[in-house]
Amino acid sequence: MKCASGIEARQVDELFINIDPIQAGGRLTAEAMKAVIAYGDGYSVCDNCRKPNRLDYIAKPPIAEFHKDVAKWLNMDAVRTVPGARRGFQAVAQTYVKKGDPVLLTSLSHYTEFLAIEEAGGVAREIPANDQKLVTPDAAAAKIEAVKKELGKAPVLAFIDHVDYQYGNLHDFAAIAKVAHQYDIPVVYNGAYTVGILPVDGKALGADFVVGSGHKSMAAPAPSGILAVTAEREKEVFRTTAIVGDVTNRKFGIKEPEMIGCTLMGATLIGMMASFPHVRQRTKHFDRELANHAVVMDALLSIEGTKCLSEYPRKHTMTRVDTTASFDRIAESHKKRGYFLQSALEERGVTGVIPGATKVWKFNTYGTTHKQALHLAKAFVEIARENGLAVKG
Amino acid sequence: MKCASGIEARQVDELFINIDPIQAGGRLTAEAMKAVIAYGDGYSVCDNCRKPNRLDYIAKPPIAEFHKDVAKWLNMDAVRTVPGARRGFQAVAQTYVKKGDPVLLTSLSHYTEFLAIEEAGGVAREIPANDQKLVTPDAAAAKIEAVKKELGKAPVLAFIDHVDYQYGNLHDFAAIAKVAHQYDIPVVYNGAYTVGILPVDGKALGADFVVGSGHKSMAAPAPSGILAVTAEREKEVFRTTAIVGDVTNRKFGIKEPEMIGCTLMGATLIGMMASFPHVRQRTKHFDRELANHAVVMDALLSIEGTKCLSEYPRKHTMTRVDTTASFDRIAESHKKRGYFLQSALEERGVTGVIPGATKVWKFNTYGTTHKQALHLAKAFVEIARENGLAVKG
Repeated sequence: MKCASGIEARQVDELFINIDPIQAGGRLTAEAMKAVIAYGDGYSVCDNCRKPNRLDYIAKPPIAEFHKDVAKWLNMDAVRTVPGARRGFQAVAQTYVKKGDPVLLTSLSHYTEFLAIEEAGGVAREIPANDQKLVTPDAAAAKIEAVKKELGKAPVLAFIDHVDYQYGNLHDFAAIAKVAHQYDIPVVYNGAYTVGILPVDGKALGADFVVGSGHKSMAAPAPSGILAVTAEREKEVFRTTAIVGDVTNRKFGIKEPEMIGCTLMGATLIGMMASFPHVRQRTKHFDRELANHAVVMDALLSIEGTKCLSEYPRKHTMTRVDTTASFDRIAESHKKRGYFLQSALEERGVTGVIPGATKVWKFNTYGTTHKQALHLAKAFVEIARENGLAVKG
Repeated sequence: MKCASGIEARQVDELFINIDPIQAGGRLTAEAMKAVIAYGDGYSVCDNCRKPNRLDYIAKPPIAEFHKDVAKWLNMDAVRTVPGARRGFQAVAQTYVKKGDPVLLTSLSHYTEFLAIEEAGGVAREIPANDQKLVTPDAAAAKIEAVKKELGKAPVLAFIDHVDYQYGNLHDFAAIAKVAHQYDIPVVYNGAYTVGILPVDGKALGADFVVGSGHKSMAAPAPSGILAVTAEREKEVFRTTAIVGDVTNRKFGIKEPEMIGCTLMGATLIGMMASFPHVRQRTKHFDRELANHAVVMDALLSIEGTKCLSEYPRKHTMTRVDTTASFDRIAESHKKRGYFLQSALEERGVTGVIPGATKVWKFNTYGTTHKQALHLAKAFVEIARENGLAVKG
């Protein structure tokens, strides 16, 4: 079925339980879907844009209220929407990083943080994760000292992922931020896997900036996200324009250079807004998500040879497993090779595992019901048994 | 009717003829609406993302093909999608502009070009438009010489709007670019009001970069747009990442720092793609749009005291009029004050004029049928007559 010329209608989340690691938190709510239909047109949210003519001041639809609500929800002082978390990283990097400045991130950091540093001309320095794939405050302190020795100055900024994209591990952000602050280094809280997923209290965490992803974790269309800041940092990252036209003497009001003015003028913003009441609620019930995830993990780990590469017990629903000594052994002789796993899962109504992957792969059970978790658990065990793998218990 | 909690369903383009100056070209096509529904979820277009893992390489949905088609359509060598034209300006400014570098734009340039220059640390210098509100190649040459004298170096980049947002005037981009190139200044073609509206041939125009807006002129959801470049500039603006993790030795493949990696991962991109066949066709029939616009302009200019502030005859469907000596005279004594015009238009099923505006205002007839143009013409004349203004002919 086509939805437009040459474009197949996507029915992934309608027909399957989707455990794709990056898609689970970005499925639209029914409210977002309806709102996106109503506000699909280009500048749809701008009908009632009045002076001072900035997106976050629009009262109808309630964009101004949404900005205030999100700031309060994250316990931060000001919020702007951005076209994806990466554009939040970019705005912060452009504000604080000059050519040659060292910037701290971690050995598990997302590539978009590196690119934001690169675009600003900064020098990226990774805090190494330990053997448990956790970034510790001690490692942060040691790295800052090492950077000072190496480059003659402390990092000007730090990007710390509360939950990293590689293992879905929960790092001690608050303790790391405390160390960074001892060196006067402002810290970006990368909440791409947490904001919209679990409770986030920016002040309690000691974040100078909280970045969230709409399309990854706030049930919104892409590209969308938020950048929340403390009052201290608000004047810096959200400074208003100072440029003047030399011929016309034009000034540009309260537009903000790091946002390049207004940001999300239509479907993306309304999608975030429409999903927000649900998203706010769901973060309060992350324990249920972890319980469902445990059901699937228990099943996977009952298959002999399967290892969990993420920290265990799990503190997040996105997990990296190693099935080299289980499913990959089957792949060696299966007529479908490595594709047998994806194929067997799809027969059972499950999708989202990279086709062909049977060694190391990631999955995310966020948003599954308990019944779906049981189905996932059963599916993995069945596939293992059918292919002659031993299953404990 | 609400589409989500606290959000009224928008029905502007369903219930009215909308002549808002910035909304006319961004109304979704039926195809885009269907595609947005199918691809509303966050990372929806990434189901089949395979190595080398970059948005513009994805074959299903046909994103790679779309990129090639858009480049060919604009007669440029490479294209990327961006979250709005402004993010195209930003990418180019970040590539070429260093702190203190002069950058050329015009006295009619859009504020987002100023902000992109400001963020990059550049010094904005405006080419003055002449009395007819047109930017000429002679004025460009004079300004470049003046900048060289003032700042000791020629501008490093120029932003030239083919059709400006203030008057909707069509400037001689090709001649201005030729002048800039004599000083080795690369030129950005700002096509926010042209790409998707009228035929654009980047090479014939002498553009180094062509920037278009999805939500303004390509019938796509916000924020969306395109940045097209020549082969010469491709290596510069779309250079791939060179940053390396110092601990992990990680590199990040062919991701591009100025794009901060992938750009439009879902509804926005699929909306542009779904509308593209229609958009490509409609640019071939801009003459019909101008004919419809002339019907409305003739009616407005038949109302005694009304002036066209834009160049005339019109070469674009977005026009600035001065009704200080016509509709504003009525506003002086009307019980609804300046709101009478908007109110009278809405009674006739017309929206998009700024509420309260009766002096200088803009409107855009793009996308209206001939019948709708006749209706608009009749509406303005009727409102004038009912309020005692003289109408010629």
